[in-house]
Amino acid sequence: MKTYNIAVVGPLGLVGRKVIDILVERRFPVGDIKFLGTSKNKNKKVEFNGESILTEVAKEGAFMDVDIAFFCVDSSISKYLAPIAVKEGAIVIDNSSAWRMDNNVPLIIPEVNPEDLHSHRGIISNPNCSTIQMLVPLKPLHDIYKIKRIVVSTYQSVSGTGKQGMEELNNQMIDYCFNVPMTSSVYPHQILFNVLPHIDHFLENGYTKEEMKMVNETKKILDENIKVTATTVRIPVFIGHSESVNIETEKPIKVEDVINILEKAKGVKVIDDIKSNSYPMPIHIQGKDEVFVGRIRKDFSIENGINMWIVADNLRKGAALNSVQIAETLIERNIL
Amino acid sequence: MKTYNIAVVGPLGLVGRKVIDILVERRFPVGDIKFLGTSKNKNKKVEFNGESILTEVAKEGAFMDVDIAFFCVDSSISKYLAPIAVKEGAIVIDNSSAWRMDNNVPLIIPEVNPEDLHSHRGIISNPNCSTIQMLVPLKPLHDIYKIKRIVVSTYQSVSGTGKQGMEELNNQMIDYCFNVPMTSSVYPHQILFNVLPHIDHFLENGYTKEEMKMVNETKKILDENIKVTATTVRIPVFIGHSESVNIETEKPIKVEDVINILEKAKGVKVIDDIKSNSYPMPIHIQGKDEVFVGRIRKDFSIENGINMWIVADNLRKGAALNSVQIAETLIERNIL
Repeated sequence: MKTYNIAVVGPLGLVGRKVIDILVERRFPVGDIKFLGTSKNKNKKVEFNGESILTEVAKEGAFMDVDIAFFCVDSSISKYLAPIAVKEGAIVIDNSSAWRMDNNVPLIIPEVNPEDLHSHRGIISNPNCSTIQMLVPLKPLHDIYKIKRIVVSTYQSVSGTGKQGMEELNNQMIDYCFNVPMTSSVYPHQILFNVLPHIDHFLENGYTKEEMKMVNETKKILDENIKVTATTVRIPVFIGHSESVNIETEKPIKVEDVINILEKAKGVKVIDDIKSNSYPMPIHIQGKDEVFVGRIRKDFSIENGINMWIVADNLRKGAALNSVQIAETLIERNIL
Repeated sequence: MKTYNIAVVGPLGLVGRKVIDILVERRFPVGDIKFLGTSKNKNKKVEFNGESILTEVAKEGAFMDVDIAFFCVDSSISKYLAPIAVKEGAIVIDNSSAWRMDNNVPLIIPEVNPEDLHSHRGIISNPNCSTIQMLVPLKPLHDIYKIKRIVVSTYQSVSGTGKQGMEELNNQMIDYCFNVPMTSSVYPHQILFNVLPHIDHFLENGYTKEEMKMVNETKKILDENIKVTATTVRIPVFIGHSESVNIETEKPIKVEDVINILEKAKGVKVIDDIKSNSYPMPIHIQGKDEVFVGRIRKDFSIENGINMWIVADNLRKGAALNSVQIAETLIERNIL
């Protein structure tokens, strides 16, 4: 079997670690693998498939023998380093927002727009977590009913901010339990037992960057004619983003048909049995690959509308898993 | 000064206690006051204005000398007991959902539809908490721009379920801190670090009762032509409900004008300075009377639309405070 030389850039972060786990889980045909970080994080041990491998410094020359480089680092690092990796012959699958809206970079969800991969010029971008989980179930509905507008409100977990977000929630909980004053450094306000209608920076138009990612990435990935309005909100949950999604379609749409379509859709699992109080929830979907959909119901306020509740593991399908699936699709389609 | 004889039915619950606090805070002109509960809860001490008063049994005959009875009990009890209280000469201000959609019962938010009070026949209903906080700021906007449609997703605290909801969240947190297996009895699933897209019972149409309350109560209170679609969600917050509200209006609407109108609106406070990360949050509004609005921004997905974020103390404006304000309005308007 043909194998591929892999680099994971940022192997110590939440998403980098998940990429490594998922490569093993899915028996990705790995040849050599290297873990690239900052010079500060040099020579740290990383486990891969029972082996202990030392991290190296991510710099010019590090990508000469690499086929696929998974970038799990901040935008600023990716902006600088991804072109170097491409020049040295690697294909970059980037998890940051650095390249997503670049016209020369395909923005890929394998279940939604794998065909866009064919135009890649070295860098392929992984969409924002909240966009990915929304579009996986909406794509098969859009194919049939043509979605005109999406109104979405999110309930996003602290792992979306990385390890430090999870640590902050955990520390605040321990402080609360032991009656010690809480501190906040990752978020501008306490996140424990609170809600922050604020994810990523604020933009001039009053929206956050996270909200505009959902608007713009949906247009780029699914259909430029779809209108999206988003409110993205951080809540005290460790892992798993939830979304309350309202869609308006051009054609008449029925709940039974939506359920049928989603039950057959790739990467989607329907959990929707209100008689047994079954619906998707963060605590149940952690560590799972699918995007979970429930609370599917007709929107009686418009002619053709549906409400639904979408939950996924933001570290897996929202990031690491989607990246690995992009690599798998490159191999399947022979476009490496 | 004229005073009024008061009864609080259900004085030991979260809302009952808040009604008692708020009567004192607002120097409501209380003559005699009595606290009525089940026979099980007879002779419990309740503090009122420095005095300790024993609870009595809520039964026929208990309302003979009462002017205003605040009902802070379940629907089933209210269904039975409110007509008795009215027959004995009291005006009932009821916090349950028992009478809200009854054509003979006005459903009142004093800032929104005080005029409906004039048609009362003894029972006056307090709307659902999530409806109240949504309509206080939407009313002045509806007056000018005519709201056609509302898409709302809620982030509701466990105090909406009463003391037992708060205890369950607290117990789960302690169990989590000390690594003890968690149990759930109030909610069908763990609420700590989780999200439940499920408040109140499920109905045949796939919506929860809470969701349909927002739809139907909005029509009754504000305008029967307004279309509402709602997703109501329980999150791990103790006190304070948040709402992501999207409105579509008939007339063109500008963000600056919305802010101006809301800054002048009775019972509303605008907190919307994204430069200083200021927006309404549950931890900041606990114990406050106003409905807080922020994240006010144009919805670019439709011609005339606005997104906003609305937070209020569900025990105060969402329940106890609104009830006391109804009583104050009855006095002001001389319709006792």
